[in-house]
Amino acid sequence: MNHIQWIENRLKIIDQRKLPGQVKYLYLYDIEDCYRSIVSMQIRGAPLIGVVGAFGLALLAKNMKTESTKEFLEKIEKGAEYLSNARPTAHNLRYCVGLVLKAIKAQKSISKMQEEAVKEALEIMKIEEENSRKIGEFGEPLLKDGDTVLTHCNAGALATIKYGTALAPIRIAVEKGKCIYVIATETRPAQQGARLTAWELSEDKIPVTVIVDTAVGYSMKKGLIKKVIVGADRITADGYVFNKIGTYQIAVLAAEHHIPFYVAAPSSTFDLKTDHNKVIVEEREAKEITTIGKKRIVPMGVRIFNPVFDETPPTLVKAIITEKGVILPPYDKSISRIISDRT
Amino acid sequence: MNHIQWIENRLKIIDQRKLPGQVKYLYLYDIEDCYRSIVSMQIRGAPLIGVVGAFGLALLAKNMKTESTKEFLEKIEKGAEYLSNARPTAHNLRYCVGLVLKAIKAQKSISKMQEEAVKEALEIMKIEEENSRKIGEFGEPLLKDGDTVLTHCNAGALATIKYGTALAPIRIAVEKGKCIYVIATETRPAQQGARLTAWELSEDKIPVTVIVDTAVGYSMKKGLIKKVIVGADRITADGYVFNKIGTYQIAVLAAEHHIPFYVAAPSSTFDLKTDHNKVIVEEREAKEITTIGKKRIVPMGVRIFNPVFDETPPTLVKAIITEKGVILPPYDKSISRIISDRT
Repeated sequence: MNHIQWIENRLKIIDQRKLPGQVKYLYLYDIEDCYRSIVSMQIRGAPLIGVVGAFGLALLAKNMKTESTKEFLEKIEKGAEYLSNARPTAHNLRYCVGLVLKAIKAQKSISKMQEEAVKEALEIMKIEEENSRKIGEFGEPLLKDGDTVLTHCNAGALATIKYGTALAPIRIAVEKGKCIYVIATETRPAQQGARLTAWELSEDKIPVTVIVDTAVGYSMKKGLIKKVIVGADRITADGYVFNKIGTYQIAVLAAEHHIPFYVAAPSSTFDLKTDHNKVIVEEREAKEITTIGKKRIVPMGVRIFNPVFDETPPTLVKAIITEKGVILPPYDKSISRIISDRT
Repeated sequence: MNHIQWIENRLKIIDQRKLPGQVKYLYLYDIEDCYRSIVSMQIRGAPLIGVVGAFGLALLAKNMKTESTKEFLEKIEKGAEYLSNARPTAHNLRYCVGLVLKAIKAQKSISKMQEEAVKEALEIMKIEEENSRKIGEFGEPLLKDGDTVLTHCNAGALATIKYGTALAPIRIAVEKGKCIYVIATETRPAQQGARLTAWELSEDKIPVTVIVDTAVGYSMKKGLIKKVIVGADRITADGYVFNKIGTYQIAVLAAEHHIPFYVAAPSSTFDLKTDHNKVIVEEREAKEITTIGKKRIVPMGVRIFNPVFDETPPTLVKAIITEKGVILPPYDKSISRIISDRT
């Protein structure tokens, strides 16, 4: 499976909304295509959104026809802001777009700016792949042979490049011969657990069982879950974790049942500047809840509240697995010691 | 809406699997029809299952052609056992079937047995309706004007007769002029909250908002929920509450956020004999999770774990609202003082 590739100045992606029923490839030719693929969730997952955002800005640079550096940079600045706002919660998007912007600004000529923009986007993609492998290697010792690990949403290959974040330690543990069983929560509304995590793990022959989101507490109480690993969309300097809606309640339940709760994320997910109270939790359209496929579930006229992320406080997080090592509490000290902002 | 009626020796029901898209009536003519309607979830909700079970046995008695009392009673005993096992978790089923069995056994002649069986089933239906009103009246003072109440699954009119259990205090509070807002959880896998609770409350013009099951913790943390009321499928003598999967984790989350967690149920839900560790938690078929409408969600070959009830310990329950009054802890003493077993 190669769900993101840069081929001849276009980005080839898998439309993740169609999975697992259909493996449909799409080509993204310009900033608009990239923006739309993020907004519509054709691609999702914080690190992947970051990479597609980076290519979005690179494509804007690459495609731009002007000889005025001023006009070029003005349009690039606007484009960067536009892309960064495609979705508000995942930090990786603004961060990776910011890296491309910085690479452009470091150049003098338009042609060099165009060249460096693409180079930087490719570099970001390469680093995210390397980081996902390193997250796996740092996280692997946390897993014992025979463990059953609950994960929420999809923080796997499809959300990143290659190994995933939450799924990376599991993949490396399996590579090293450990038996790891995964419980994937369905993850309503968009069902990334049931659709994507179940799909990519079963493609890799890693045993996976799907449960609905209501069955987390019961499964924990029955002793079926030994560890929890989730990804993240944004982690603040003091360790507040923004991730898919439902993460917070899983963290509370894990604490109640004395189950270690781990978060796995690369540096690009860390937002060292924003106060956690200022982070915007995206609310999406009612239709994601009212209708599944062609089936209308909720009666017409009923109000819907559809926040798609939540915030888990640092007190509930046992460790954060990054490409630079495993970060332990107290996070308000440890995170800034290990993670740096490259923008 | 009249979702259950006894008309000319047959039971007329609404097929709840089709709601809210379609209001489809079905007639149940014999024990087999009643059994199937319970197993297939055409009707659901612990008190309603009890009533339909009672009519199932009454229909067996009514339809039986024999002049041997011995044969009659043997077949009735078998039928009672058959019906009681249609679904294992809700206590009301075995209890109400037991009441009809007792009424039959109290008679000498077959014709009297047949007459009393139907009479008892009708009496059970009438009592459940009265009880749902009384649950509403006892529960109403717990709700303040302006409260937002979270409820899980459907413990409303459709799960009972008329007022519901969890929804009864809300309906009575609204009757008395209080503004009550309801948050209904979708309740995967069968989506009774999104489909049924949202439907019946919006029919009654009570403001209701649907959230997915992953959004409970976040909504509580945001201060959006003042109280939780749920129904129950079985309550043991020491206060363990078996109810729809997801109830337990909502109770844990309510405790974490200092939100009162109430259970509403009639006497027929109380099982004063069985140890809570011996109660069977039903697991249902994978298809309830893998497929919604005609849409396949989970890839083929992936394992599914689909328990449809869970157990909430008495320590998490602030009070149990019954037709005999509000029962407070310690439940191992208070329940047996107030609830009696009529079988």
